[in-house]
Amino acid sequence: MRTPKDLISFTCSALDEVRSQSPLVQCITNSVVVNFTANVLLALGAAPAMVDIPGEAGPFGRVASGLLVNLGTPTAEQRDAMLEAVVAANDAATPWVLDPVAIGFLPVRTPLAFALRDLRPSVVRGNASEIIALAGGGSGGRGVDSADQVDAALEAASALAGKTGGVIAVSGPVDLLTDGRELVRIANGHPLLTRVTGGGCALGAVMAAFAAVDGDSFATTVAAATVYTIAAEIAAENATGPGSFAVAFLDALAGVTADDVARLAVLR
Amino acid sequence: MRTPKDLISFTCSALDEVRSQSPLVQCITNSVVVNFTANVLLALGAAPAMVDIPGEAGPFGRVASGLLVNLGTPTAEQRDAMLEAVVAANDAATPWVLDPVAIGFLPVRTPLAFALRDLRPSVVRGNASEIIALAGGGSGGRGVDSADQVDAALEAASALAGKTGGVIAVSGPVDLLTDGRELVRIANGHPLLTRVTGGGCALGAVMAAFAAVDGDSFATTVAAATVYTIAAEIAAENATGPGSFAVAFLDALAGVTADDVARLAVLR
Amino acid sequence: MRTPKDLISFTCSALDEVRSQSPLVQCITNSVVVNFTANVLLALGAAPAMVDIPGEAGPFGRVASGLLVNLGTPTAEQRDAMLEAVVAANDAATPWVLDPVAIGFLPVRTPLAFALRDLRPSVVRGNASEIIALAGGGSGGRGVDSADQVDAALEAASALAGKTGGVIAVSGPVDLLTDGRELVRIANGHPLLTRVTGGGCALGAVMAAFAAVDGDSFATTVAAATVYTIAAEIAAENATGPGSFAVAFLDALAGVTADDVARLAVLR
Repeated sequence: MRTPKDLISFTCSALDEVRSQSPLVQCITNSVVVNFTANVLLALGAAPAMVDIPGEAGPFGRVASGLLVNLGTPTAEQRDAMLEAVVAANDAATPWVLDPVAIGFLPVRTPLAFALRDLRPSVVRGNASEIIALAGGGSGGRGVDSADQVDAALEAASALAGKTGGVIAVSGPVDLLTDGRELVRIANGHPLLTRVTGGGCALGAVMAAFAAVDGDSFATTVAAATVYTIAAEIAAENATGPGSFAVAFLDALAGVTADDVARLAVLR
Repeated sequence: MRTPKDLISFTCSALDEVRSQSPLVQCITNSVVVNFTANVLLALGAAPAMVDIPGEAGPFGRVASGLLVNLGTPTAEQRDAMLEAVVAANDAATPWVLDPVAIGFLPVRTPLAFALRDLRPSVVRGNASEIIALAGGGSGGRGVDSADQVDAALEAASALAGKTGGVIAVSGPVDLLTDGRELVRIANGHPLLTRVTGGGCALGAVMAAFAAVDGDSFATTVAAATVYTIAAEIAAENATGPGSFAVAFLDALAGVTADDVARLAVLR
Repeated sequence: MRTPKDLISFTCSALDEVRSQSPLVQCITNSVVVNFTANVLLALGAAPAMVDIPGEAGPFGRVASGLLVNLGTPTAEQRDAMLEAVVAANDAATPWVLDPVAIGFLPVRTPLAFALRDLRPSVVRGNASEIIALAGGGSGGRGVDSADQVDAALEAASALAGKTGGVIAVSGPVDLLTDGRELVRIANGHPLLTRVTGGGCALGAVMAAFAAVDGDSFATTVAAATVYTIAAEIAAENATGPGSFAVAFLDALAGVTADDVARLAVLR
C-alpha cells in the first residue's frame, strides 16, 4: 500500500507522460458534455476522438489508447457502440472507464450498466449513489446528483472492485478511490466544479487518458483525479461564477504543472 | 389582473424559491444547445437532467419537478421520448414547457408540435413566427429566426392560450406573455443574447424551473423571463462580444439577486 | 490566376457581404462541435440552422443559403439527412461544403465520404490525411489528427479538385487551397485553434457562409479561411489558455474588420 506521498510523486510524472504521449482517448459519452469533455482532453494535452456509432466504435476501439463509456444520454446507437468498443478494448488490453450516470431506477441504462460492469472496466467513476447502485444496492440518486455521501459508498466501492478487478472512484467533496487493496482520499477540488455540466463526466475521460500511459490503474486514476481537482482549485481563483470558472478550468488544465501538484495535493 | 409591480415582487421571491428548492428539470432538447441549457440551469441553482430516450423519458417524467420539450433537432428517439415524457408529466400534474423551434414548413416537427400543443403544455415559448404557426396561421420564420415582430403575434398568442389553457411567451426585443386573461410585456434583455446559440432555448428550461416551484404559471413564466433578461443586461456590461457575453451570462444568472430584479425590471 | 493581393481585397468585401446578408447556413455536423459551430456562425453574423433529420434536411436544403456536411459523428439519421440535403442543395445550386472528418479506415464514414465526394461538393475542407484519403490514397490519420503534413497533400488536393470540380482546402499550420487552377497558401492562424474542439470543423461552416454570398467559390473559401485564422491571431493576444482562447475567438470573429484583414493577412 503506497503512501499519499508516493502517489503524489507518481501523479507528477504521469501528468508529464500524458502531455508527452498525447494518448488517443475514444469517448462514447452523452450529448450534454461531449463538447466540454473533448475540450478538457485537448486542454490536458490528450487527443479526444468521439467515435460512437456501431460499426466504427469497435474498429476504433482497437487503435485507441484508452476508452470512456458514459451512460448519460444512451441512444440505441450508442448502446450498441459501447458494447462493440468495450469488446475491442478488452481484446486489445486497452484500459477503459465506465461512468454509470444516473443509474438506479432508469430502466434502459441500469441493466446496460450491469452488463458493462461484468465486462470488467479498468475504472468505474461515479457519485456515491451510482457506485452503490452498480454494486447491487440502492436505487440511485436524484437524476445525476448523488443522494448519498461519499463515505456511505465505501463498502459498495470495495465490493464493486471485487467484481470488476479494477479501480472504483467515488466523486464528491472528498473523492474516494480504491481497488479493494489500496484506498486513498483526495481532498482537492472546488464546489464550482459541480455548477458546470460535465464537471464529473469529463473526469472519466481524463482517467482514461491517464490509464493509457501507465498500466498501474490505481495510481493513474488517483493521478487523474488529483490533477483534475487541483486544476479546479486554480481555476476558482480566477472565477466570478460558473461561466468564468469553466473557462478558467480549461486554461488551468493546460497550465497545471507537476510543481502545482506537489504543492497543492491533499491525499490521505 | 396583477400590476407589473405585483409581478416584479413575485419574481423576487420566485428567484429565491428556485435557488432554495433546486427543482429537477428534465430537458428533451436539441443537440446544439443542450450543454448551454444544462449550464444555465446549474448557474441558476436548478438541477438539469437530460433524460431523453424512449423507455426512460416517461419514468423520469414522473419524478421530475418540471419538463422542457424543445423541437430543435428532433431525432426519432427524441420524438418518442417527448410524447412519453409529456404523458407522464400530465399524469403527475408536472408543469411542462413546449418550445416549437422553427416550426412552420418543416414537415416532421410541425405536426409533432401540433400534437404536443393538444396535450396542453403549461407554457409555450417561441418567437413570433413560431407562435403564429402553432396557433394555426403563418408558415414560420427563417430557420430559427422570426420573420415577424412580437406584437404581430398578440392575437395568435391569445388564441393559442385558449387552446392550451396555459401561458404563451413570445420572445423578442420586448417579450410578450399572456395566458389569455393577463398580459405583460418585459422590456429587459440585450441583443447579444441573440448572438449566442441557445439564448432563447435555454429560457424555456428556466421557465420549467420556475414553474416547478409555484403553481401560478403566468407569474412564474414572467418571473423566469424577467430574471433571465435582467441577467443578460448585467452580463452585457462585462462583455466585449458574444463569446465573453455567454460566459458572463452564466456568471450573472448565478449572481443575480432579488435586489437586481427590483432595480432593473421593466414590465408593463 | 489572382495575386494574393487580389484575394485579400476580395476577402475584405466578402466579410462585409456575409455580415450584411447574414446567410442561412444549414449544418449537419457532429455532436462534439455543433454548439461551437453555431456560435461561430452567429459571431460572424451568419444564421446557423442545424436541420439534420431525414424528412427535414432535404426541404430545408432547398431554402438554405449554404450547407455544411461534416462526418464527425455520423448517426444513421444524419447519414440519411446528409444525402437528402446534398441532393436538395445541388438541385437548388446551393453551395455546400464537405468535411470528411477522420476518414480512412473507419468503415461507415469512409464509403459515405466517397459517395458524397461524387456528388461534387463546392468545397472540401480537411486535414492533409483526410484529403489524401478522399482523393483515393492513404489510410487516414490518427483519429481526427492528421498524420501528414499539409504540403504532402498537394497532389491529392489537385486530383480531388479534378474529381469534384470544386475547391479543396487543406488545413494545417499553413493552409493550402486549390481548385486545380488557382492555388494559395494562408500563413495566418494560431496553434491554440488546435486546442479547441471544433477549431477545424467550424471553419467548414464559415466556408459555407462565405460561399453563400458570392459564386466565386475559390475566392470565398480563401476569404473564409483568412478571416477565420486572422480572428484566431487576434484572439490569441487575449488568451491565457485554450478556454479563454475559445471565448476570445468568438469575440474576435464578431469584431474582426476589413482593416484587420488587410493589415494581417499573409497569403502567398
